[in-house]
Amino acid sequence: MKETFDPQLLTEQARGVRRAARQLARQPGSVRDDALQHMAQSLRAHTEAILQANQADLARARHNDLSDAFIDRLRLTPERIEQMAAAIDEVRALADPVGGYDEMWMRPNGLQVARKRIPLGVIGIIYEARPNVTSDAAALCLKSGNGVMLKGGSDAYASNLAVVTAMRQGLRASALPEDACQAIGFVESRAREATTHLLTLSEAIDVIIPRGGKGLIHFVHQHSRIPVIKHDEGVCHLVVDGSADVEVVERVVLNAKTQRPGVCNAAETLLFTRNALGVHVERCLKALARAGVKLHLCETSAAIAESLDIAYTPATDQAYATEFLSLELSVKVVDDLEAAIAHIDRFGSRHSEALLTENYPQTQRFIDAVDSSVVLINASTRFSDGGQLGLGAEIGISTTRMHAYGPMGLKELTTTKFVVLGTGQIRE
Amino acid sequence: MKETFDPQLLTEQARGVRRAARQLARQPGSVRDDALQHMAQSLRAHTEAILQANQADLARARHNDLSDAFIDRLRLTPERIEQMAAAIDEVRALADPVGGYDEMWMRPNGLQVARKRIPLGVIGIIYEARPNVTSDAAALCLKSGNGVMLKGGSDAYASNLAVVTAMRQGLRASALPEDACQAIGFVESRAREATTHLLTLSEAIDVIIPRGGKGLIHFVHQHSRIPVIKHDEGVCHLVVDGSADVEVVERVVLNAKTQRPGVCNAAETLLFTRNALGVHVERCLKALARAGVKLHLCETSAAIAESLDIAYTPATDQAYATEFLSLELSVKVVDDLEAAIAHIDRFGSRHSEALLTENYPQTQRFIDAVDSSVVLINASTRFSDGGQLGLGAEIGISTTRMHAYGPMGLKELTTTKFVVLGTGQIRE
Repeated sequence: MKETFDPQLLTEQARGVRRAARQLARQPGSVRDDALQHMAQSLRAHTEAILQANQADLARARHNDLSDAFIDRLRLTPERIEQMAAAIDEVRALADPVGGYDEMWMRPNGLQVARKRIPLGVIGIIYEARPNVTSDAAALCLKSGNGVMLKGGSDAYASNLAVVTAMRQGLRASALPEDACQAIGFVESRAREATTHLLTLSEAIDVIIPRGGKGLIHFVHQHSRIPVIKHDEGVCHLVVDGSADVEVVERVVLNAKTQRPGVCNAAETLLFTRNALGVHVERCLKALARAGVKLHLCETSAAIAESLDIAYTPATDQAYATEFLSLELSVKVVDDLEAAIAHIDRFGSRHSEALLTENYPQTQRFIDAVDSSVVLINASTRFSDGGQLGLGAEIGISTTRMHAYGPMGLKELTTTKFVVLGTGQIRE
Repeated sequence: MKETFDPQLLTEQARGVRRAARQLARQPGSVRDDALQHMAQSLRAHTEAILQANQADLARARHNDLSDAFIDRLRLTPERIEQMAAAIDEVRALADPVGGYDEMWMRPNGLQVARKRIPLGVIGIIYEARPNVTSDAAALCLKSGNGVMLKGGSDAYASNLAVVTAMRQGLRASALPEDACQAIGFVESRAREATTHLLTLSEAIDVIIPRGGKGLIHFVHQHSRIPVIKHDEGVCHLVVDGSADVEVVERVVLNAKTQRPGVCNAAETLLFTRNALGVHVERCLKALARAGVKLHLCETSAAIAESLDIAYTPATDQAYATEFLSLELSVKVVDDLEAAIAHIDRFGSRHSEALLTENYPQTQRFIDAVDSSVVLINASTRFSDGGQLGLGAEIGISTTRMHAYGPMGLKELTTTKFVVLGTGQIRE
């Protein structure tokens, strides 16, 4: 299974994906959908081979003393493979994002000018241990007419390769070039070297989407000569104004912090404006304490917690800047909405922020002034997700402002070209 | 005038632009328009100071034995400064690209989801000798609510600084933070070092737009840790089918090659399908020869040229790959449209390609199969320009597929954030 890393081979592979992507982009959506159907079928048909490859990865992971949580993410079962196939079917059922015209207008000289949706080209996905990312990402890229270079974690090398082998058979079965989906994986020591080389292939790859922890994102950002769409941390804020409905506040605060604390759109800081002192702060602190949330409190909220006999840690600037990804929350009472916005400016990561209020001018001010990728009014930050916002499937959440900002669906895997229809016009 | 390059100072300047850009983005369009008006007025009022600074640059350029053409591009006159001010007024008159909602939809749980246009943030423009780029680029960036870091060529250092000083006074006069427009220029030896440092400031700058020759573009691409929108070369093709109108062909071919040969959207290669042999090829070769165009001809077209006593050079693969930017043109007769598309695939730079035909299926095939940023039917490639296509002013033509592909106007200096309006929804 060990392979030698050969930069020339990797370059050739990427060029092959580029060629295949051009062919793919020229097919109508029905042909791509047919390929996705074959890919899902092929994944199901290869269940045994994939499980066998996965056993090899699992054995290596145990040998390398990797954590139980890690091994659980790596493990495939017949059910998980069926879920992967079903996810491909779901992507197939989405509307075709390419080929349509976004807009078309007429110039005074009679030229008709339009923007037509086309695939981005070749997308490089660099990710870590979950083998299901392999099939999910490939399905989204191929549905949108893109070629895809998959560089999974080296610990999942055999599993990823088996999944890709199955998917490439699906492409072949629908007479599409199998090179439109290419996996590269180099076990252990040469993996970083291969990734670094991949990140220089700007002639063959149009965009890199890293999916993984901070270390991976940072590495890709430092080394890439290809545009990167980053999915960085989410230090998400909930701002509560005194005018907000008390039931809404308690429900949304609990949901944003506790429904799934380990994800990027969970709330990490709760800001109360001074007019929310009293019922809002008290009810929230009680509910959060009951839910087992560890509280980092400012002086004002700490005084209230003490009166309610609720345990806490004094909040620090470091806590305000922390993405806890766990049942921990910073709480601060600020003077007013402007002070809340200033706090978000200083400590936020521009991911998602919500304001709970019944005051109309505040909603307009918050929407205008907060430049995070998702700004919510009277709703949980947990809705900052492509599926929840109605984009269909999601390839990630971009914290890069270029091209796509916030949750990315199929449309964000496309771009537009200009189409100009004339009758012999020349430029004077 | 010599300054010491201090990386920490440059970092602080960029952070200042970021802070100012946040303030700017929160102002309504009328405030930004007011600032543009003050900027144009201030530029006019500073004419003497700008001319004086320009004299210093010109003296240095002559001392350094720079070419006459270079010195002409560098030279400012009262008329050129008036043109720069008038260009700011024109940008001001364009529609405000920020604040509007692109689309809004309803989710089954009652959440209203919208995409709202917002500025990109801070834009870094790296350019060469023309001082008018300073005011043009700044006006476009500020109109679209962005902060701008301007790094002009070191040979135009004093001129650029004088222009920026005038524009910053205009910002101050409208009570906007002058740091929204910042110039950095480090004379001679330290310029590259300063640019390299600028290209690492990804926390403060959202996108880099280089404007200049291949050397500059390559340098920026190699060193930037910030997303780059490239404006690369244009090896533009004209494809002529036998069905095309002969008058249209002659008119468009001449226009695409000769109206302004030194620009990226001029045609560099003319492809005839075999059914255009005869009248089309003969008329075009004659007209091009009369216009003084140096012809690089394939064997088939060369035989026709010989019969017409037209001078030529045999075409080579290198000629087919060349952006002449002068009165030179490659000509090739290919079998059919598919062969033309294959030639474009191999030699094109994905900038702009035009097909001249009266055959409807060919137009559809060409539009679908050619993935250049601008695809034209029966029109000159010279229309591949933001102003000509109706985008208002143009900041450049992107050959990067990410974010903006093709001519970029004000809208391409913006992005969207999600706005989610709820009534207390939580995620189940």
